[in-house]
Amino acid sequence: METIVQQKLNQAVELLQECELDAWLTFVRETSQTHDPALDLIVGFGVTWVSAFIFTRAGEKIAIVGRYDVDNIAKLQAYDQVLGYDQSIREQLTREIARIDPQTIALNYSLSDVGADGLTHGMFLKLSELLGEKYAARFTSGEGVARRLRERKSPAEVARIRETVRLTEAVYRELFALPLRGMTERQVWQHAGEIVAGTSAEFGWERVNCPIVNAGPNSSIGHGIPDDIAIEPGMLVHFDMGLRHGEYTSDLQRNAYVLREGESAPPPEVQRAWRACRTALEAGRSVLRAGVQCSEVDQAAREALEDLGYPEFMHAFGHHVGRKVHDGGSVLGPHWEKYGDLPKQRVEPGSAFAIELGVMVEGVGYIGVEENVLVTAAGAEYLSEPQAELIVLG
Amino acid sequence: METIVQQKLNQAVELLQECELDAWLTFVRETSQTHDPALDLIVGFGVTWVSAFIFTRAGEKIAIVGRYDVDNIAKLQAYDQVLGYDQSIREQLTREIARIDPQTIALNYSLSDVGADGLTHGMFLKLSELLGEKYAARFTSGEGVARRLRERKSPAEVARIRETVRLTEAVYRELFALPLRGMTERQVWQHAGEIVAGTSAEFGWERVNCPIVNAGPNSSIGHGIPDDIAIEPGMLVHFDMGLRHGEYTSDLQRNAYVLREGESAPPPEVQRAWRACRTALEAGRSVLRAGVQCSEVDQAAREALEDLGYPEFMHAFGHHVGRKVHDGGSVLGPHWEKYGDLPKQRVEPGSAFAIELGVMVEGVGYIGVEENVLVTAAGAEYLSEPQAELIVLG
Repeated sequence: METIVQQKLNQAVELLQECELDAWLTFVRETSQTHDPALDLIVGFGVTWVSAFIFTRAGEKIAIVGRYDVDNIAKLQAYDQVLGYDQSIREQLTREIARIDPQTIALNYSLSDVGADGLTHGMFLKLSELLGEKYAARFTSGEGVARRLRERKSPAEVARIRETVRLTEAVYRELFALPLRGMTERQVWQHAGEIVAGTSAEFGWERVNCPIVNAGPNSSIGHGIPDDIAIEPGMLVHFDMGLRHGEYTSDLQRNAYVLREGESAPPPEVQRAWRACRTALEAGRSVLRAGVQCSEVDQAAREALEDLGYPEFMHAFGHHVGRKVHDGGSVLGPHWEKYGDLPKQRVEPGSAFAIELGVMVEGVGYIGVEENVLVTAAGAEYLSEPQAELIVLG
Repeated sequence: METIVQQKLNQAVELLQECELDAWLTFVRETSQTHDPALDLIVGFGVTWVSAFIFTRAGEKIAIVGRYDVDNIAKLQAYDQVLGYDQSIREQLTREIARIDPQTIALNYSLSDVGADGLTHGMFLKLSELLGEKYAARFTSGEGVARRLRERKSPAEVARIRETVRLTEAVYRELFALPLRGMTERQVWQHAGEIVAGTSAEFGWERVNCPIVNAGPNSSIGHGIPDDIAIEPGMLVHFDMGLRHGEYTSDLQRNAYVLREGESAPPPEVQRAWRACRTALEAGRSVLRAGVQCSEVDQAAREALEDLGYPEFMHAFGHHVGRKVHDGGSVLGPHWEKYGDLPKQRVEPGSAFAIELGVMVEGVGYIGVEENVLVTAAGAEYLSEPQAELIVLG
């Protein structure tokens, strides 16, 4: 059976043909420090010395790496040639490029897509010097290849994401079974750590703000680090957590309300905001399918929320999940400058997205809904079991 | 008391003065995907949208970040100004740069130093467009600042490294107390995972080859992933492990020999190789002090080993340890092309290095010695307790 790396390398060759590019060159060093996101897909682990991974339209797959990384790359059984060196990559790299003589050399740089922009500027200068003017003139952005390689998840990749989503839901269930009332954000965050330590998963982003826990209206919304605010009656409590398992991630938000004395359900304005969030999320999901322009999906969700009388959310509706929680690639977002040309892209089949939006209920707290979905030609199916109702903490 | 980030930002301003640069600009986005190593020193956690961190020779410290990261940066109490934006960084970034009007703008790119080369090529192009020709003409490499900021560890940073080294030694002690004989490399690697899980530390590099475990002469030396080779009598067993704790790392190699029936000590050729490694390591350490050229330290160790009749080791003698195990900055290495100009640098006071070398004993296995040291004006003191003798597994 093919491994995921073998699948992705075959996909890369197909994408070179589709994008009419002769060669795709990933050029990295010491990836524990500066990590090209493409490496996750084409290798799956790090390398130490200056290394080049070359794929050609004709189907060749070549790795040139330092001597101490040769064995690991060879064991992938995914490359036709694994060339090792001691003192400099120059000889083997220039020889291989001259032999292939590609008319276009796609590199990992992109103005908009972080997932396709792993080549550092220093390494770009170094590569230009190594290959000389003749080949430097043939450099072009490889974002078309790198982006689609990331976005078009194989069935094996989708299965991994599905499993991580399942684990995340289980962690949330354990968390909500705890007596959260009276705990501080930080204490809840600490408990989440203990629960996750008992699973085979790890947190999906930096531990310092994973999970994000927002208790009530004075908490730091966004990417805030949990604080000493205590969970008290009359508060909305909002969670944002992603996990990583089998090298693939999840990203889910969940929401609870703490009843005041005498209350048997959340107050009407909280319930109305909750329904608005759910409605807007569904409005976005209902237009999400392969081939649609990314910004249209965002627009549908954004307009639905505004139609219900709530302010627009100040972020994009959707981002890819995959190897990373924020996986790069296209963005289901508005045409704001910071998103560059990503909202103009078309949605690729096989994409796995986190879709999200939220509303602040004055004096009560923040509601943020976020689910994970898989895109098919027909639409977008949930990978998670969507939170249907606010969790009520008695 | 100053936090480490506050210390490093003050140090950055001093370095701008020392390097005669007007401004240092770190320009990043979605650092969970592509991570500028400078961010560890000037922030300590990640940011999501396009962000700029500006330091001036006059001492200004400015952060311009997406709205959801403003609170976290403000809580550092290390920046004079934390500016947030929603749709684009353009307005605030161009306004601040025009106000400061620096004659030189140091950016994070470097041909040689991965630790000073976090700016991606796409972000370089984007920044050039944002700031326009006038300021793009003032861009220069900030490697002088970024490198020294990393190398000159503050006392608080050194204390953290010392603590991580201590933890690593404790993990090694637990590991060597196990009945390793008969276990496979992978089983030992698994046990190491269980021991580390019981500490407050995590592994220093990717779990897949941390620790590296090499049993006997047929194991994959270098960065090899542990395999199914069993530890048997007459074998050298070599370990390479780093940990991370309190955000700072260690990197130590340790070596054991498994006695054959009838042996009461390792055979003479093994003992001779062990002594040669120790002697060469000490030869390097003895010339390591602030101000010496990096390559001279490597040369002393390399020549000492060759004088004892062993082949030269095919890597550099020393690399910095800090936030990362391979921390970037200068290299105590030979003038091989792959190291660029790093071996030509002078050793900075306060540097923490891992120094290492090794010898293959034919038919028996690999010996690799690696210790961590702190550089002062007077010399290099051990942060680790150096392995004095081969560990004998009965």
